[in-house]
Amino acid sequence: MTRQELLENIRRKHSFLCVGLDTDIKKIPAHILSDADPIFAFNKAIIDATADLCIAYKPNLAFYESIGTDGWTAFEKTVKYIKENYPDQFIIADAKRGDIGNTSQMYARTFFEHIGVDAVTVAPYMGEDSVKPFLGYDGKWVILLALTSNKGSFDFQLTEDKDGEKLFEKVIRVSQTWAGDDSMMYVVGATQGERFADIRRVAPTSFLLVPGVGAQGGSLADVAKYGMTPDCGLIVNSSRAIIYASSGTDFAEAATKAATAVQNEMEQILKTAAII
Amino acid sequence: MTRQELLENIRRKHSFLCVGLDTDIKKIPAHILSDADPIFAFNKAIIDATADLCIAYKPNLAFYESIGTDGWTAFEKTVKYIKENYPDQFIIADAKRGDIGNTSQMYARTFFEHIGVDAVTVAPYMGEDSVKPFLGYDGKWVILLALTSNKGSFDFQLTEDKDGEKLFEKVIRVSQTWAGDDSMMYVVGATQGERFADIRRVAPTSFLLVPGVGAQGGSLADVAKYGMTPDCGLIVNSSRAIIYASSGTDFAEAATKAATAVQNEMEQILKTAAII
Repeated sequence: MTRQELLENIRRKHSFLCVGLDTDIKKIPAHILSDADPIFAFNKAIIDATADLCIAYKPNLAFYESIGTDGWTAFEKTVKYIKENYPDQFIIADAKRGDIGNTSQMYARTFFEHIGVDAVTVAPYMGEDSVKPFLGYDGKWVILLALTSNKGSFDFQLTEDKDGEKLFEKVIRVSQTWAGDDSMMYVVGATQGERFADIRRVAPTSFLLVPGVGAQGGSLADVAKYGMTPDCGLIVNSSRAIIYASSGTDFAEAATKAATAVQNEMEQILKTAAII
Repeated sequence: MTRQELLENIRRKHSFLCVGLDTDIKKIPAHILSDADPIFAFNKAIIDATADLCIAYKPNLAFYESIGTDGWTAFEKTVKYIKENYPDQFIIADAKRGDIGNTSQMYARTFFEHIGVDAVTVAPYMGEDSVKPFLGYDGKWVILLALTSNKGSFDFQLTEDKDGEKLFEKVIRVSQTWAGDDSMMYVVGATQGERFADIRRVAPTSFLLVPGVGAQGGSLADVAKYGMTPDCGLIVNSSRAIIYASSGTDFAEAATKAATAVQNEMEQILKTAAII
């Protein structure tokens, strides 16, 4: 999906919501467990319940790999289902990969050629040649970890070098020499609202994928205030607050309701910013 | 596997070699492709051909995931085969994972409980709470990326902070407050032999997992000279130079020969250092 298509979807759907499919077999409603593929059955219901309200889905690979081959099958079926039924959705494999060149090349083939997602999250620690193999696929994206939403982000990402540049700023600055804002985005956690101003100084036009709103405590209003660009430039992810809004038989309706609340807030933000 | 057992295996086998099972369906000998599970058939032959000469195996997950569910099955079968037939082998899942706490927890369960490997490689970028879930399993290990063997390692890992501490040194120093040398090792690339002296200043007793010898150009003699501790403290990995030593029907014999050459050199090094 191109940057232009992504922006059009945001304007058309009045939303920049990404629903995180962090589907945990231990948390899905009991009545679905009798299904032959409960993970996929759950995802399908969540997707049908939210596709009108979001512009992206983000399955986190850890949740699928944790149950072995059945999980991989459910992941592949989920991606296929979205592509066939909701082709306007941007599909992010949240994989946080990053390895030496020939290995990253294998991952790139897996996710872009074999499975066919639109974007993969990539860890920056190993540098350019670990990221490059993911670039150069038409309409495909790298989403590089910059500033994450967890407590451990303070351990290394905020380390300042001799010139006062923080590691996450260096990651963003340097990586922009590898690809433009039409094929690279950054993960920036919403729990650190005030940091978005710093991020925008080094990445004025890039899309940011923002986790941490909802269960992790980030504020959507703050993210928009400090991080929004004139054409939006944000994809805000919510996982648990939507997919586990109810643990009963009404989980899909509850997901619609939770996603609608976020989408309404986003619509207001987009209107105020005169983007729609 | 405990640190003590690992050291005993090194002394008993006169080897600190790890064979990297980077098994690429496009590179395995043609005559194996007719097997129902060619990846596993290849691995099984390589393992039988090298088990006397090495103390560890390291399947790189990228190569297995690249072919989807069949790859996961081959990976799980490979680990099971090693555990059942060569229980003294240290099995490393080279996965380079690292995510927010609840997600890393899923990965830890996958690799340690479901699949049962001894160690997982973990990326440090997201800090303590992304690594902690992998710790606390008896006899299991985190192998943290510190200084990798690729060109991109220069992009961020060598960045110096205000006090002149490089990022990879900070990763090693800080992470030693999370776990001791009985449950954490570090990946240090062999292509940068002279760096081992710096590493040993911050990690005097930790095991180092050293890729980059062989196809990537690192020197075993340099690694031993600068990186060896009084009880060895090194696991040196070789992948392509051993498993693809021949692309013909004699690939297993060729792997034995290539591994024997490395093991002979290691034996000499261990004798010179009076470890055996």
